[in-house]
Amino acid sequence: MKWNRSLPNGTKDKLFKEASLSHQLETLVNHHFKRRGYQRIETPLIEFEEVFDGMAQKATSRYRFFDDQGRIVVLRPDMTLPIGRVISTTGVIPPVQLFYSGKVFRVNKGHSGEYNEQLQAGMELIGYDSLKAETECLVNAIEVSQKSGLTDFQIELGHGAIFKTIMAELALRGKEAEQFKWLLQSKNSPGMQTFLIDYQEHELYPLVSRLPRLFGDEEMLKEVTSLTTHGTILAVVKELETLIKRVKQLYPEQPLTVDIGLVQAFQYYTGITFKGYTDQSPDAFLSGGRYDNLLTEFSVDPVPAVGLVFYLDRIIYIKERKGELRKPRGTQTLIHFEDDCLQVAEALLAKEPDSSLSLHQELEETVNHARQWHIPRVLCVSQAGVIEQVMEGGGSDA
Amino acid sequence: MKWNRSLPNGTKDKLFKEASLSHQLETLVNHHFKRRGYQRIETPLIEFEEVFDGMAQKATSRYRFFDDQGRIVVLRPDMTLPIGRVISTTGVIPPVQLFYSGKVFRVNKGHSGEYNEQLQAGMELIGYDSLKAETECLVNAIEVSQKSGLTDFQIELGHGAIFKTIMAELALRGKEAEQFKWLLQSKNSPGMQTFLIDYQEHELYPLVSRLPRLFGDEEMLKEVTSLTTHGTILAVVKELETLIKRVKQLYPEQPLTVDIGLVQAFQYYTGITFKGYTDQSPDAFLSGGRYDNLLTEFSVDPVPAVGLVFYLDRIIYIKERKGELRKPRGTQTLIHFEDDCLQVAEALLAKEPDSSLSLHQELEETVNHARQWHIPRVLCVSQAGVIEQVMEGGGSDA
Repeated sequence: MKWNRSLPNGTKDKLFKEASLSHQLETLVNHHFKRRGYQRIETPLIEFEEVFDGMAQKATSRYRFFDDQGRIVVLRPDMTLPIGRVISTTGVIPPVQLFYSGKVFRVNKGHSGEYNEQLQAGMELIGYDSLKAETECLVNAIEVSQKSGLTDFQIELGHGAIFKTIMAELALRGKEAEQFKWLLQSKNSPGMQTFLIDYQEHELYPLVSRLPRLFGDEEMLKEVTSLTTHGTILAVVKELETLIKRVKQLYPEQPLTVDIGLVQAFQYYTGITFKGYTDQSPDAFLSGGRYDNLLTEFSVDPVPAVGLVFYLDRIIYIKERKGELRKPRGTQTLIHFEDDCLQVAEALLAKEPDSSLSLHQELEETVNHARQWHIPRVLCVSQAGVIEQVMEGGGSDA
Repeated sequence: MKWNRSLPNGTKDKLFKEASLSHQLETLVNHHFKRRGYQRIETPLIEFEEVFDGMAQKATSRYRFFDDQGRIVVLRPDMTLPIGRVISTTGVIPPVQLFYSGKVFRVNKGHSGEYNEQLQAGMELIGYDSLKAETECLVNAIEVSQKSGLTDFQIELGHGAIFKTIMAELALRGKEAEQFKWLLQSKNSPGMQTFLIDYQEHELYPLVSRLPRLFGDEEMLKEVTSLTTHGTILAVVKELETLIKRVKQLYPEQPLTVDIGLVQAFQYYTGITFKGYTDQSPDAFLSGGRYDNLLTEFSVDPVPAVGLVFYLDRIIYIKERKGELRKPRGTQTLIHFEDDCLQVAEALLAKEPDSSLSLHQELEETVNHARQWHIPRVLCVSQAGVIEQVMEGGGSDA
C-alpha cells in the first residue's frame, strides 16, 4: 500500500452533521460578541515558544518544530497569551473588549479521549479593574451556553487568592505544599485533618480544616465568614457574594456554585475564576477568570484582565451525549434540469427551501440519486416546463 | 529581554477590521454552500505527509514535524487531497457535493509577500462526470465572488488535456519538454518558432506555433478549430464553448476568457480548469478544475471530481487595495450602568443598534472612554432612570 491510511494520533475528520455544528457554534459565538460591541482578533496558529512560558501546561505536550530560519516554533496551545503578546507589542491600547475563535493544539498522550486539535472561542476584557468585568464574563458565559442549546449547566466559581493566601500564611513549601495541594484537589477531608495536626493553634486552622468541604451554593459562604476573620479571605467572600447577586439580577434560576478550596490549574489567575459543567462530561465546557498579571509575562506593567474561553468541541460532545445533535434537515427537493434551462433551475433553487440542483446528466440518474438519499421530491425542469415527481417511500426523516 | 517580540516568518496578527472581514467571508461562503444543499467536511490541520504525495508543490515548502510516536506529519498544504483521503477510506460514497473552509500552510521563502498561513474555502463535486459539474463550479465561483463584494473580476478557463496531448504528439521528453513548458508559460512566441524549427511538417505545427498567442475571449476558439483537425483538441474546444454558453445563460456579462496554451501548476487536473483574477493582484483569488484521477493517489479506482477553492486572504487583499474594506461601524452608544441596574442595561443593549455596555465603574471613566474612542452617545442607567448624553465632537465616522 502506497500510504498510511490512518490519521495522526489525536486527530479526526469531522463529517457533515458534526462539521456543520462546529462551524455553526463558532459563528454563533462570533455573532454574539460582535452584537455586544466586541472587536475580533486573530493571531497565527504558529508562534515562538517563549510566548507560552507563563503556562502551567507542560511543554512536552506541545507540537514543536522549526521555522525556515531554524528557530523553534509551536502550534499555539492557548489563545490568551498570544493576545497578551499583541497588547504588549502593538498600538492596541487598553481598555479593550476582544473576542476570538480558532484552533489550539496539545499533544495528549495515550487515550485521554481528548483530541489534539481543539476548537475554542472566547473573550478577553483587558484594562478593566472593577467587578463589572467579571459580571460581564458570567453574563456572556450563560448567554452563549444557552444559545448553544445547553440546558442544565452549572457554573462553579473559585478565587485565585484563597489558595495562595493559605499557602503563604501556613508557610507551606516544597513537598508539604505539594501534599497540601493534592489533599485539596482530591477533597480528602480525613487526610487534611492528619496533615494539619501541627497547625491546630494557627489562626486559619478552623477554615483550612474545613476547606475540602467548603463548596456548594452561596449559603456556604456564610459558613466561611463564621470560620475566619482573615481580611483577604473575607474580602474574597464579599466579592463572590456581590458577583452572585449581580448575576442573579438577570439569571435568578441559573445554578452558581462556589468552591472555596479550588486549586487553579493556571497559576496566572489572580481573582475570581469560573468553570461551566454539565452532567454529561467531567471536563468544563467553559472556563475563565481574572489574571491581572498577564502582561507581566511580556515584560510590561500589569494590566487588569478578565477572560473566558468556550471549548466548542466539548459543547458538541455534550450535545451528542444528550442526543441533542439535530441532524441537518438535508435536501428535500432535488432539481433536475436540461442544460439550457439553468436560469429556471437557479430560480427554483432560490425559491424552494432545502433544495439542491442535481448535477446528473440523465433524469434516471437523478431519480436513483433521490431514492438512494431518501429525498422525497424531484423537480424536472425542461423547455416544456417544470414537472414534479414525489418519490415513493421517500420520507424527510429517513 | 525575556522573549522575542517578533512573529515567526510569514505569520501575522489580524486585528479588528481585517479579522472581522476574514471570519465574515468564511461564514458567507459556508452559508452560500449550505443554502445550495452542500455538506460540510472538516479534516485535521495535521496529516501524514504521504497524503500530499500527488502535489506539484515542493515538499521543502511544508511545515514538517513529528507526532508523539515519532512519525512525520505536516501542516496541510492543501484541502483537496485530504478530502480524497476521506472518500477513499470512509463510508462516504459518491456522488457527493462537499464544502469546506479552514487554514492551509506553506513555507514561503524570502519575501514573496504571501503569508504562510492562509484561509481558504471551497467546494468538491465528487462522482459527477458531466459538464453540469463544471457549470455548477463556475456558477458558484461567480456568485461567491459577487457576494464577497468583488467587482470587475474575470475568469480564465484552460484545459488539462491540451498540454498533455501536445507533449505526447510531439514526443517531448526531459530537457526539451522543460524548455517547451517554459516557452509556453512565458508566452514566448519568437522562442516557440525557433524551438519548433524541426517540427514544421508535424500535423500539430499550425496550432502549436500559434499556441503562445491563443488566449482571449471565446471568439479565439474559432481560430483554434481553423488550425487543427486533431480529435482531442477539437473535443476540448467544443467542451469549452459549451461551458461558456451555459454559464452565459445566467451571467451574460461576466468576462470569461480562455487560455489554450495554459500549463497547469497541478498535474492532477484532467479537464477544464478555471482561475479568477482582478486587476489588483497577479495571483488568482480562486482556482479549480476537473481532476478525475484524484482518488488514484489513494490506490482507489478513479472517480470523476471537480473542485474549486477561494483564497479568502487574497480576496481581502484585493478589497483592501481597492479601498473597499469597509470599517465596521463601531460602537455608537455606550451604556453606563449602576451595579444594580444590569437588567435595564441589558434590555437597552438588546434594543439599541451598535451599542455596548461600559465596564467602567465610574461614569467619568465611561465618558472619557467615549471621548477617546469617538463614541457619539452615552446612556447612563441608574435607579432614577436613563439619562442620555450626546458627546461633543463625537462623530460616527471618526
